Amino acid sequence: MATLGATLASVADGEVHIALPFSEHLCQQHGYVHAGAITSILDSACGYAALTKAPPDCEVVSAEFKINLLRPALGDRFLAIGKVQSSGKLLTVCTGEVRAFSGSAHKVVALMQATIVNVRQ
Amino acid sequence: MATLGATLASVADGEVHIALPFSEHLCQQHGYVHAGAITSILDSACGYAALTKAPPDCEVVSAEFKINLLRPALGDRFLAIGKVQSSGKLLTVCTGEVRAFSGSAHKVVALMQATIVNVRQ
Amino acid sequence: MATLGATLASVADGEVHIALPFSEHLCQQHGYVHAGAITSILDSACGYAALTKAPPDCEVVSAEFKINLLRPALGDRFLAIGKVQSSGKLLTVCTGEVRAFSGSAHKVVALMQATIVNVRQ
Amino acid sequence: MATLGATLASVADGEVHIALPFSEHLCQQHGYVHAGAITSILDSACGYAALTKAPPDCEVVSAEFKINLLRPALGDRFLAIGKVQSSGKLLTVCTGEVRAFSGSAHKVVALMQATIVNVRQ
Repeated sequence: MATLGATLASVADGEVHIALPFSEHLCQQHGYVHAGAITSILDSACGYAALTKAPPDCEVVSAEFKINLLRPALGDRFLAIGKVQSSGKLLTVCTGEVRAFSGSAHKVVALMQATIVNVRQ
Repeated sequence: MATLGATLASVADGEVHIALPFSEHLCQQHGYVHAGAITSILDSACGYAALTKAPPDCEVVSAEFKINLLRPALGDRFLAIGKVQSSGKLLTVCTGEVRAFSGSAHKVVALMQATIVNVRQ
Repeated sequence: MATLGATLASVADGEVHIALPFSEHLCQQHGYVHAGAITSILDSACGYAALTKAPPDCEVVSAEFKINLLRPALGDRFLAIGKVQSSGKLLTVCTGEVRAFSGSAHKVVALMQATIVNVRQ
Repeated sequence: MATLGATLASVADGEVHIALPFSEHLCQQHGYVHAGAITSILDSACGYAALTKAPPDCEVVSAEFKINLLRPALGDRFLAIGKVQSSGKLLTVCTGEVRAFSGSAHKVVALMQATIVNVRQ
């Protein structure tokens, strides 16, 4: 997260937002942010969202996720939103999206569905 | 769809609902509807939703999907909801869920994220 | 499985094969077997493969899977192969494929990656 | 790739290997390499593998992928292997794995299944 320049923008029960400002070093050849960076902030948003529902003595680990990259990640800032859809003792299922902002308008550039495991410390 | 006893409950631009009544022959050993039936109606709902956004001379084919089975599919009827999240000339991305109803209350039992291809006839 | 006409063709430690003969009632409009049937036998093959690695007092449940449908399922018989790639106390990860046979030649028509949970009875 | 310190280790028709040496700045709190880095090199290996099968005037873009993170990415070096499983005019389906090496022994730490689109330049 620090490497990417991402910050935790909001934490609510079952929903976490992570903000990422545009930065040239995150870009691939065509001037849009690399899918790896988009994936990382969205995976993190889902993981932190899951953590808000985990038992107090647990950490969380992503068991798996699937991401659709809908369009090039063009914008001056990005917001990853992770939401808990279902949480049990053991597994939490989250969905998430990344919004790319140009001024106040945004487009959704990625969608995720993730399975996260509660791990007792 | 006919084999399962499923019916098209609603068709709107970018959103399709498919209804499935409970039936014993769809059940596995524990009295809940088999994941295969749940997956089929949800894949169909996503496919039909994609079709509402496809060019007029195109059919649609699921390229891939991912489904999370959140809890056992217990209920007296089921509703699969497929929604288009993004549609291009070639690919459509849908998300979907299956709701299991007991009377008027429902629980979401499955979540899907699918990629569907427009195929010129 | 019985509804589809599928049978367990082979069970080894960490690998299970399920056979499905062609049948007209499994077909969609174009004469190939419906994705729902292909998905069901592949999910079952992965689930049974996971069961061969599960602790003796456990059942298995698919938490999620992703399937790519590579080409139309045309053939006179089909073989779903599920293989365990990783198994822990709690979660098993399987990959699988469905082969469509025309005589002795075959093509792979579907690929799956699945996460299966051990559930204590 | 350069940001991560990853290099192209081998390119064959339909199969690409990407090497990543261990580096402290890629680690999360527990001393293993972050899932974001593992995901990035595996997505890249699948993308480059797809490129070896793409028509000469095409670029490739990942439409979507699913990754299972099997165990913590502990090792002194990592190898991401992407393989083409099916390629058409439009879509290529790849599978991939990341191996974590400690000396000459390795464990598979991640599995991917990806759908990649050919895009005419």
